[in-house]
Amino acid sequence: MKNFMEPETVALIGISRKSGPGSFNLMENMIRFGFSGKIFPVNPHSKEILGRKAYPNIRAVNEKIDLAVISTPRETTLEILQDCVAAGVKAAIVVNQGFADADDRGKALQQGMLEIARRDGMRILGPNTLGVINNYNNFTTSFMPITKERVPVGLICQSGIFFVGAREFSRNIGKGIDIGNACDVGFYEALKYLGEDPDIRIIAIHMEGLNQGKEFIELAAKIVKEKPIIIHKTGSSKTGAAAAISHSGSMAGHYQVYRAAMNQAGVTFLEEDGQMACAVKTLLHLRPMKGARVAVITFSGAAGIMASDGLERHGLKLASLSPETIGSVAQLSPEWMPLGNPLDIWPAVMLHGADKAYSIALRQVLKDPGVDGVICVAIGPEIPEFSFLDVSDALKEVMEELSDKPVAAWLYGPNPHEIGDKFESTKRIMVYPTLEEACWSLSLLRDRFEILSGI
Amino acid sequence: MKNFMEPETVALIGISRKSGPGSFNLMENMIRFGFSGKIFPVNPHSKEILGRKAYPNIRAVNEKIDLAVISTPRETTLEILQDCVAAGVKAAIVVNQGFADADDRGKALQQGMLEIARRDGMRILGPNTLGVINNYNNFTTSFMPITKERVPVGLICQSGIFFVGAREFSRNIGKGIDIGNACDVGFYEALKYLGEDPDIRIIAIHMEGLNQGKEFIELAAKIVKEKPIIIHKTGSSKTGAAAAISHSGSMAGHYQVYRAAMNQAGVTFLEEDGQMACAVKTLLHLRPMKGARVAVITFSGAAGIMASDGLERHGLKLASLSPETIGSVAQLSPEWMPLGNPLDIWPAVMLHGADKAYSIALRQVLKDPGVDGVICVAIGPEIPEFSFLDVSDALKEVMEELSDKPVAAWLYGPNPHEIGDKFESTKRIMVYPTLEEACWSLSLLRDRFEILSGI
Repeated sequence: MKNFMEPETVALIGISRKSGPGSFNLMENMIRFGFSGKIFPVNPHSKEILGRKAYPNIRAVNEKIDLAVISTPRETTLEILQDCVAAGVKAAIVVNQGFADADDRGKALQQGMLEIARRDGMRILGPNTLGVINNYNNFTTSFMPITKERVPVGLICQSGIFFVGAREFSRNIGKGIDIGNACDVGFYEALKYLGEDPDIRIIAIHMEGLNQGKEFIELAAKIVKEKPIIIHKTGSSKTGAAAAISHSGSMAGHYQVYRAAMNQAGVTFLEEDGQMACAVKTLLHLRPMKGARVAVITFSGAAGIMASDGLERHGLKLASLSPETIGSVAQLSPEWMPLGNPLDIWPAVMLHGADKAYSIALRQVLKDPGVDGVICVAIGPEIPEFSFLDVSDALKEVMEELSDKPVAAWLYGPNPHEIGDKFESTKRIMVYPTLEEACWSLSLLRDRFEILSGI
Repeated sequence: MKNFMEPETVALIGISRKSGPGSFNLMENMIRFGFSGKIFPVNPHSKEILGRKAYPNIRAVNEKIDLAVISTPRETTLEILQDCVAAGVKAAIVVNQGFADADDRGKALQQGMLEIARRDGMRILGPNTLGVINNYNNFTTSFMPITKERVPVGLICQSGIFFVGAREFSRNIGKGIDIGNACDVGFYEALKYLGEDPDIRIIAIHMEGLNQGKEFIELAAKIVKEKPIIIHKTGSSKTGAAAAISHSGSMAGHYQVYRAAMNQAGVTFLEEDGQMACAVKTLLHLRPMKGARVAVITFSGAAGIMASDGLERHGLKLASLSPETIGSVAQLSPEWMPLGNPLDIWPAVMLHGADKAYSIALRQVLKDPGVDGVICVAIGPEIPEFSFLDVSDALKEVMEELSDKPVAAWLYGPNPHEIGDKFESTKRIMVYPTLEEACWSLSLLRDRFEILSGI
């Protein structure tokens, strides 16, 4: 994988002379991304592309080439790969569609590609791929623009939408490998690379089909002891599985079997789109949860009820709070206020202010030996007029002292995003779009504790 | 309900002399909201509040009072209500907590309130409520700031968080009734009012407990023929049901029985928080779906597979597209491209541009007699550099011609919100945060068709 992820010399075969919006020029994108290695454009119809000398074919380059990126019509691919082998190229990415994802001719071409590559030990990523992203050395082969941010999140996928819409998977990704049709390099090798990569602390995977299933599962079971692995496996439906064959040429396989094996291996297994971003930020930033007992601190009784429902749906339960914990909030509350878990602090807020009431409540539940994790319900108020209801600074202060239990928050009100970013700024509290997702996220942390304990 | 929602004269009892941030002064909020009727502040310790003459008690006002809003400690409430009855007040909102939501003393006080009110036919909303919002005549009794927008969405709830965080329920709400502990005015009367209100086209409800269950269900079954009713019933868990008793004094009741009865009545029944906003915009703006056959048009094969999975999970199926539909996209695609449903138009986009490929595909599936509804997967690209991938205008043009089938969209990429707003601007396509929610939303439109058909 090193030649794919950290090449020093790259040949771009079939690169267009057109650049700018609408051209999808991957050389332009690569340069803009800040790649510092050597780029050799190959195009028999040009002498120069984007100010660099162009070569009629790869054999004319006469330098060691770590990686060739091939974006040419499918009928030309075999000949170009033969040239790459002859030129001693170590690795090739075949970007275009029209292979096992298409018709019988495409299947034959894909098989032919593989035979050529194997002859000389050249490795192929794709076809039907955007290739790779490596934000840690400013390298990408994507012809679509990529956000650049060094986050310890590794992505393996079978579709470019996750490069373009990385937010589906995480706030961002640090390194990404789109294995496309996976004719040669597959999930096993990509996982092995990211598993060993010290820059990467969590691995997110979009999977249509899986070869080398047994080896992959065994490898995953080892890696999850160090780094969480989250897999969104698509093709759970019959029609989805059929569609996978014509998308990446993948056999979706026996879905239930995959799910059971991956759960057994300690992989976090997702079935719906939209779950990945929450799962990644949860497992990346929050501590595993030692038990199932959750305290809910809330500005709103209604939200406390919703959190109780969500906890039960996700196999967790309301903690029994200690008399000390209840007492500390009772001191701030009107005499008539019934207190328990969910811990409704709104009357205390009205009497003593939001910062004071919330700090005391959070500190107490974090110290309470009967509590394994916390859900915080608060307001995202308009700033600056209602800043006195913004408890983010007060909560951050408590979390700096006491941070061994996971805390998931949900914010209602007119301004949840700005205040949510403040909550998350120290990475010790994560904020979720719904209470349901906050509860589910804590259940992932409960599972994570069991995986790490070998339960 | 008219005295609550459209009063001409309002007495504010227990109004504070403090105003500005942190004071939660509901008189200040009411004036800022634009209420054009008469306001009489009542406070024995002040002669003037916010520039208006203050009265020592309500009997001193000596004018017809449509509505009294009472924000005083609980021990004073009975005496104040007696004064209100003596002064001929028609309706009262009791804002404060500490009644059936609290202890035995609170329960007794709440019972006492009701007896006083009944003596003279005065109606009570609350206690433990923010009261009402009526954006159509600029009236609110909320002490928290409210967003003002005239949308035909009516809300009934048992917690102020939905006034403050109205986005949980909808982009906004036009009229809202927080019944709080519902000692007198309850769901039945609030639903009747909104059901008859010509300004309101859809009714969203947050429900903890329900009295008059039979009457409510019968009324709902009538109203849903005209206006969709969506209910988020909390307290599905044992602990949640217990918490409901101490929040609004509500008995959550037999959850499964409620659910069955409401489904039977044609109500859209929700169990999780975060589902309401999608359900409201779907049922407000999109047409009921006549069958279960859905076409998926997509820039991405991977997303097509995810949509297929989601459709199956929500009881829908992929439509068999007609040869004409397939043919129209085949003409734009490379020869090797396998076409079906999901209809992957990315190769056509690369050859003919996004606007042309998407317009043709959408027009064809909307005309296809085998299609009942459509899911559109597209990119939310950075603007202006990648505007050529923004198909919102092209799709809006098609929808102006052909709008009898519902179209749900999902956008990936770096800029889904800005482009999503463009998609939704004519209200004929709705955009969802995930494909799962797009599929689920179409299933609600399928249910809606069956409700209206009496199936």
